[in-house]
Amino acid sequence: MTNISELREYVLAQNSRLPDEGLVSLTWGNVSGRVDELIAIKPTGVPYLGMEPEDIVVLDLEGNIVAGELRPSIDTATHLELYRAFPEIGGVVHVHSTYATAFAQARIPLTCLGTTHADHFNGPVPVARPLTADEVADEYETNTGRVIVEHFRTNTIDPLHVPAVLAAGHAPFVWGVDAAIAVDNAVALEASAHMAILTGVLTGTQPDPLEDWVLARHHERKHGANAYYGQGKQ
Amino acid sequence: MTNISELREYVLAQNSRLPDEGLVSLTWGNVSGRVDELIAIKPTGVPYLGMEPEDIVVLDLEGNIVAGELRPSIDTATHLELYRAFPEIGGVVHVHSTYATAFAQARIPLTCLGTTHADHFNGPVPVARPLTADEVADEYETNTGRVIVEHFRTNTIDPLHVPAVLAAGHAPFVWGVDAAIAVDNAVALEASAHMAILTGVLTGTQPDPLEDWVLARHHERKHGANAYYGQGKQ
Amino acid sequence: MTNISELREYVLAQNSRLPDEGLVSLTWGNVSGRVDELIAIKPTGVPYLGMEPEDIVVLDLEGNIVAGELRPSIDTATHLELYRAFPEIGGVVHVHSTYATAFAQARIPLTCLGTTHADHFNGPVPVARPLTADEVADEYETNTGRVIVEHFRTNTIDPLHVPAVLAAGHAPFVWGVDAAIAVDNAVALEASAHMAILTGVLTGTQPDPLEDWVLARHHERKHGANAYYGQGKQ
Amino acid sequence: MTNISELREYVLAQNSRLPDEGLVSLTWGNVSGRVDELIAIKPTGVPYLGMEPEDIVVLDLEGNIVAGELRPSIDTATHLELYRAFPEIGGVVHVHSTYATAFAQARIPLTCLGTTHADHFNGPVPVARPLTADEVADEYETNTGRVIVEHFRTNTIDPLHVPAVLAAGHAPFVWGVDAAIAVDNAVALEASAHMAILTGVLTGTQPDPLEDWVLARHHERKHGANAYYGQGKQ
Repeated sequence: MTNISELREYVLAQNSRLPDEGLVSLTWGNVSGRVDELIAIKPTGVPYLGMEPEDIVVLDLEGNIVAGELRPSIDTATHLELYRAFPEIGGVVHVHSTYATAFAQARIPLTCLGTTHADHFNGPVPVARPLTADEVADEYETNTGRVIVEHFRTNTIDPLHVPAVLAAGHAPFVWGVDAAIAVDNAVALEASAHMAILTGVLTGTQPDPLEDWVLARHHERKHGANAYYGQGKQ
Repeated sequence: MTNISELREYVLAQNSRLPDEGLVSLTWGNVSGRVDELIAIKPTGVPYLGMEPEDIVVLDLEGNIVAGELRPSIDTATHLELYRAFPEIGGVVHVHSTYATAFAQARIPLTCLGTTHADHFNGPVPVARPLTADEVADEYETNTGRVIVEHFRTNTIDPLHVPAVLAAGHAPFVWGVDAAIAVDNAVALEASAHMAILTGVLTGTQPDPLEDWVLARHHERKHGANAYYGQGKQ
Repeated sequence: MTNISELREYVLAQNSRLPDEGLVSLTWGNVSGRVDELIAIKPTGVPYLGMEPEDIVVLDLEGNIVAGELRPSIDTATHLELYRAFPEIGGVVHVHSTYATAFAQARIPLTCLGTTHADHFNGPVPVARPLTADEVADEYETNTGRVIVEHFRTNTIDPLHVPAVLAAGHAPFVWGVDAAIAVDNAVALEASAHMAILTGVLTGTQPDPLEDWVLARHHERKHGANAYYGQGKQ
Repeated sequence: MTNISELREYVLAQNSRLPDEGLVSLTWGNVSGRVDELIAIKPTGVPYLGMEPEDIVVLDLEGNIVAGELRPSIDTATHLELYRAFPEIGGVVHVHSTYATAFAQARIPLTCLGTTHADHFNGPVPVARPLTADEVADEYETNTGRVIVEHFRTNTIDPLHVPAVLAAGHAPFVWGVDAAIAVDNAVALEASAHMAILTGVLTGTQPDPLEDWVLARHHERKHGANAYYGQGKQ
């Protein structure tokens, strides 16, 4: 991807996947993508259907608008905080998808119960701590990002091993090496959360986590140095 | 919107959103919109697909038909009662959407558990009391509206802060400053109800409500005097 | 409807609604319609998409084929038993729709918990008793109908007041004055069952039934002598 | 089916049914079909939409590629193990469908609770034992097949009577006499699992299984020597 026009088309396409994958209602979600020092993100409050490439807002990592007439997503400051803290990521997704949001509202981490989860998340998806009243009063969206980064640093979690978090009382933030992978991970998070709730209904207690050796194997066969999933193109 | 023809087209379009948003089966829902002293509403028992603007019935606030050959929605008297009591609202939606209706049937208010709820409802969505046998025998639909108004007045709830109610044993009524916002709120109510049931399944007990400061912040950033969500067009 | 060709087109159209309304997977459901002494029904094992009017099988009330090259639905004998016992009905639907079937498998009647149910079923939807081994060994499908009729006669339930039953361990049978109304009732049964399960999850115990006076009012405003729902065309 | 080209078109069509039937997200599922000594299977990591017949990989029973430029499904070794052990099967499906996967994650067999299940599975769908760390470290996918075969042999289950298994902590594998029937069975497994979870929610305890005589009758009327379901073409 070599220019702003391509970046906008790509980020528009990834935003359009959100309703198609059943991850959003109305305008409740946004995808951003990064190339070098530029971030492109959905404009706030604009429907996915009918959105044009020039509606996508392009900013630098400090949040200065480089291109675009519209206001960027209200969650832009959270995206920027994640990009600044995790330079290895190239795409961020925020959605209020039903099942993952239920875990965020229950403030319960998503334990790995099976290979669907293991294929995308190399361990449990954590809950970031709730914000204090002061953190909400001032720089709310930036602080939403800061408590996520705080959680990953304090617990030494590699953001590419566990590319998602549940914001307590809010909803998930999900990421990846690029925006397409970030959307894939948001799909996987929602499916894993749906299956985890059902598994708990069946067992009646907290289900046993997946064996460590299966978790490791599944993650490695898809993401490790000798990965053999896929056609080796991505 | 300057004339009856435009009002009908607008109200038709908002009714057509009900099946698209998954809020209705068959003909189980209706949207009305108000401009000045005129109310336009879906005709009773007519499918959404194939409905024409002239099928939309136009009435005054007392329920006299101003335009239209068809009978208005069977719930028209409830809509009119809400419009007369709450002059600040410009649209009303009645649907039997699955998850919100489950709360209405359980007669349990919908507590605010997260920001999806907070973005649309500035506090819990209440349950209006059941009607007595006498209230059902005579002027049933008007009385359905009266007990809603009674609840909001007795508890001094601002109808634009909490633009929805659960009619006990029945289903939700939802509203907004116009019909499009009322439908948005009906989508948000259904999503919040779905997430709330799942959150309760996960916690096993009544989940903790969202912190007050997050509820206030989310509602204000979208609806307050200094709102910064959206492009400032609506 | 004056001839076999019209009857077939009508019954085909009603069968095609089953996948559109989310009531069936694969070929797991069938609709029949009656005009005078003729029954038209879906052929067994044929997909809904691509079915032609001449694929619909026409039989007399004793099950003799009057028109059609294909085998009729495997459940035809159950439909015929219902038509012979309940001459006031003109359409029958059998589906394995998810939520109604869960009640049939749990062998729990569907209590009326709200107006969605009351609009279509004037009281609880009962469970017919399981068949004995002998009843299954010989004339299984006819006996499936016989135990339904036995339940309605023993309990003096009017089949037009409660146009559905849950066959224990099996799935619902639903009917109406014509096939279109029977499909409407199957949609209403599935929605009511879905809402009832969710209501029970919320209350944690068997929820209270809807007040009798609301049940009566809702059924009467839609189906009574002075019904005021709909445009009076059906 | 007489040649590789026809086999590929057929297997492509059956893979395309997976998203249409709601059995997969992203690229999380694969169908293979066998004709004589040739197996055709989906390529790994390739989206269903836009897949071409020549993308389908053709192998012999030992896993040598006979035709195709792409890498075969990462689960190919499991498919091959099943084909070698069960020569009577002609199609295999692996999906992470939500409800069946919840049972696999809970490691609870799917009891037969009703006729939807009985029409496709002549008894409970079992859970194969978890793999040991050693079995995961080396030949993971082949060992996934071996523990399935071990379960069916140890318990003397006829793979055509119960054409599915739940891999513990993973997801279902489903099969049939051909690939189309295998996909039908995957649809039936998912529907049966969905209904079973709901039935358990309603009863509050493990629901009673379906009577043996109904299970036998339903399976026989569809699959027995004197089957009378369907038009006798398949």
